[in-house]
Amino acid sequence: MTNHEFYMDLALQNAIAMKGQTDPNPLVGAVIINDNRIVGVGSHLKAGEPHAEIHALRMAGDKAKGGTIYVTLEPCSHHGRTGPCAEAIVEAGIKKVIIATLDPNPIVAGNGVRILEDAGIEVITGIREKESIKMNEVFNKFIMTKKPFVTLKAGVTLDGKVATHTFSSKWITSDESRQDVHQLRSENMAILVGINTVLKDNPSLTSRIPNGRNPIRVIMDSTLKIPLDANVVTDNQAETWIFTSQHYDSVKKQQLEELGIHIFVTTSENSVNPNEVVKILGEKLVSSLFIEGGGNIHASFLENRLVDKVVLYFAPKLIGGKDAPTFLEGTGIADMADAVELMDTMIEKVGSDFKFTGYPTYGN
Amino acid sequence: MTNHEFYMDLALQNAIAMKGQTDPNPLVGAVIINDNRIVGVGSHLKAGEPHAEIHALRMAGDKAKGGTIYVTLEPCSHHGRTGPCAEAIVEAGIKKVIIATLDPNPIVAGNGVRILEDAGIEVITGIREKESIKMNEVFNKFIMTKKPFVTLKAGVTLDGKVATHTFSSKWITSDESRQDVHQLRSENMAILVGINTVLKDNPSLTSRIPNGRNPIRVIMDSTLKIPLDANVVTDNQAETWIFTSQHYDSVKKQQLEELGIHIFVTTSENSVNPNEVVKILGEKLVSSLFIEGGGNIHASFLENRLVDKVVLYFAPKLIGGKDAPTFLEGTGIADMADAVELMDTMIEKVGSDFKFTGYPTYGN
Repeated sequence: MTNHEFYMDLALQNAIAMKGQTDPNPLVGAVIINDNRIVGVGSHLKAGEPHAEIHALRMAGDKAKGGTIYVTLEPCSHHGRTGPCAEAIVEAGIKKVIIATLDPNPIVAGNGVRILEDAGIEVITGIREKESIKMNEVFNKFIMTKKPFVTLKAGVTLDGKVATHTFSSKWITSDESRQDVHQLRSENMAILVGINTVLKDNPSLTSRIPNGRNPIRVIMDSTLKIPLDANVVTDNQAETWIFTSQHYDSVKKQQLEELGIHIFVTTSENSVNPNEVVKILGEKLVSSLFIEGGGNIHASFLENRLVDKVVLYFAPKLIGGKDAPTFLEGTGIADMADAVELMDTMIEKVGSDFKFTGYPTYGN
Repeated sequence: MTNHEFYMDLALQNAIAMKGQTDPNPLVGAVIINDNRIVGVGSHLKAGEPHAEIHALRMAGDKAKGGTIYVTLEPCSHHGRTGPCAEAIVEAGIKKVIIATLDPNPIVAGNGVRILEDAGIEVITGIREKESIKMNEVFNKFIMTKKPFVTLKAGVTLDGKVATHTFSSKWITSDESRQDVHQLRSENMAILVGINTVLKDNPSLTSRIPNGRNPIRVIMDSTLKIPLDANVVTDNQAETWIFTSQHYDSVKKQQLEELGIHIFVTTSENSVNPNEVVKILGEKLVSSLFIEGGGNIHASFLENRLVDKVVLYFAPKLIGGKDAPTFLEGTGIADMADAVELMDTMIEKVGSDFKFTGYPTYGN
C-alpha cells in the first residue's frame, strides 16, 4: 500500500460511514494532508449541505495551502449551494489532488479535473477507483437512468424455500441475518413488498438499528385489498406508498388517503407493472429500492431486468416440499442456457447463515 | 504449531492421499522420527494389506529403535494379517507413540494404548484429533452401524432449482464443479440414482479423473422400467445393482441378470424403501453411498434420517419458475421450526460456483 492508498482509504471510510443519509447524492469523503500530517477530513453528510471537500478545507483552514487533497469522487465543476468544489480547491492553494474516480456522468466527467489542471495543480486519478465505484453503485445507476438501483433480498433455506408447504416461515434465518437486513433497509430509500406479504405477515418494514432510517414503504396492490388496520397503514413509522391498477376500490382509496397513505394509480388493467413502479419512483427521486416481496414479485422484477443486485441469506436448513414456495417463482426461464447469470459474486458468513451477494447480467 | 502437530500433519497427508482405495478400512498414516529426522513414513493402502505403522516400521528398519511414531489412529490390538500393530511397535523398540484419535469402536478403544503403556512406552493421544475423525467420517459411521455413510449431492441454481420448468438442466454448474463431483464419486463405494434420472439423462455415473475408481451404480427402480440399452446396463464400466419392489417385471429381471446386472428384490409393495436399500448395502460391505438422485429420492432419504452429509454446488444463476423442480421435493416439513438443521457448515468457491458442505442433525 502506498501513501496514496492509505489516505484514500481514510477518505473512503469517511464517505461510507454516511451510507443511507446522503441520497440522492453520492457518498464522498476527502482528506487533506500537508507536510505529512493530516490537516483536514470531510464527508458529504446530507443532500443540500456542503460537499466533502468543503468540510475538509474548512477544517484545514490556512494549512490547506500547499497541501494535497484526497477525494473519492471528482470535485464538482457546477455552481451548487457551496460553489464548484474544484474552484474552492484552487482558491485554497492546494498543490496536488488525488481522485478515486471521475464523475459517473459522462457529460460532466473530467470538467472538475480540467479546472484544477488549468490552475496548475497536479491531478492523479484512479486510486481505489473500483472501491469508490462500488460504494456509489446506487448513485451511479440513478444519475444515469433516473431509476432506482434495485436490490432483491430473500432469506431462504438451503433448498431455496421461503416457507414450508403449509406457509410456515418464522424464522428461517438467524438473528444476525435479520439484523443485517435492518441495516440494508436503512441504506435504501424505499422498500417494496406485494399485497400478499402484507396480508400474510402484516410487517412494519422498518429499520430497527442505531442511526437507522426507515425507508418509504411501497406496496404493490392492484385492487387495494390492504386492510385499513395494517401496520404499514397505521403505525406512522414511515411513509407508505401504494401502487394500484385501474381497477382499484375507490372507497378504499379515499379511506387510505385520509389516513395519509399515498396512492399511485398506474395504467395497468390487472397486476401492476413493475416497470411503471420503478419509473414513478425515479421521478419521485427515490434512488434505491429494496425488494422483500414473495416469489412472484421477485420474478416479475427479474423478468423485466429491473434487478441490479441480489442479496440472499442461506440458512443451513432443509425443509423439502414440492409445493413449498421458493423465492423466485413465476413461469421461469425455459432453457437452462438462458439462465440469468450473476457477476461479482461474494459469500460471507452472517451468524449461522451464508450471505450471498451478486449482480445479475442480462444478455442482449 | 508444535513438533507433534508438524509430524502428525504429515501422517494425515499420507493417510488422506489414499482416499477411495482403502475402504471398508479407515485411512491411516504414520511417521517415525529418530534423533529429529524422519526415518519412516507409511500409509494403509488397501484392505487386506499391511497397516500404516507396519509400512513405516519397515522403512525405518533399525532406526525405529528409540524413535517416536506418529499415527493418525490408535494402533490395533487384534491379530489381523500383519499381527497387532501395537505389538509390532513394542518389538521395534519405539519409545514414544503419538496418536491422533482412539479407535472409534468403543469395544476396542484403548486396547492398543494399553499394550503400549504396559510395555513402558510413553503414549500421547489427541494430537489433530478433530482432523483425524473428520478424515474417517465414513469408516467411523460404518464400523459402528454397519450401514453406509450417505452423502447427498446436488448442483443447483441460486433459487434451488435442478432444472427449468421444461426440465432443461444442462449445465447448471461449472466444469470445475463437475470435476469435483467426479472426485467425490471416486471416493464413494456406491452411487445411487432413481429410475427417473436414468430414463431422463441416461448417465454413466463414472469417475472421469486420474486414479479415479468407478463406484457401484445403484438404481432404485420399483418395477424394472430401466431400458436394456441404458449406459449403466451396457457399458461395463462398473457394477450395476438395481433395487426393485415385489412388483418387478420378471422377464426384464432375467434379461438384466443375463447382462450381468445384480437385482435385489426388496420387501416393498410399491416404491423401494431407502432404509432397506441402505441396510442391504451395508451387509454387502458398501461403506459409503453417494446420492445424485432427483428431489423425491433426496426427500425420501432425508425424511428417513439416512443422510449423513450434504454437498451442494450453487451456480450463480437464477431461473425462477413455480413448477421448476428443486433438489428436495416430497411433501416436506410442515412447521419451519422442524426444519433439518445442518452443522459444521462450510462454503468454498469451486470455479464460478459455491460449494456448500454440511452435516444434518436430526432431533429426537
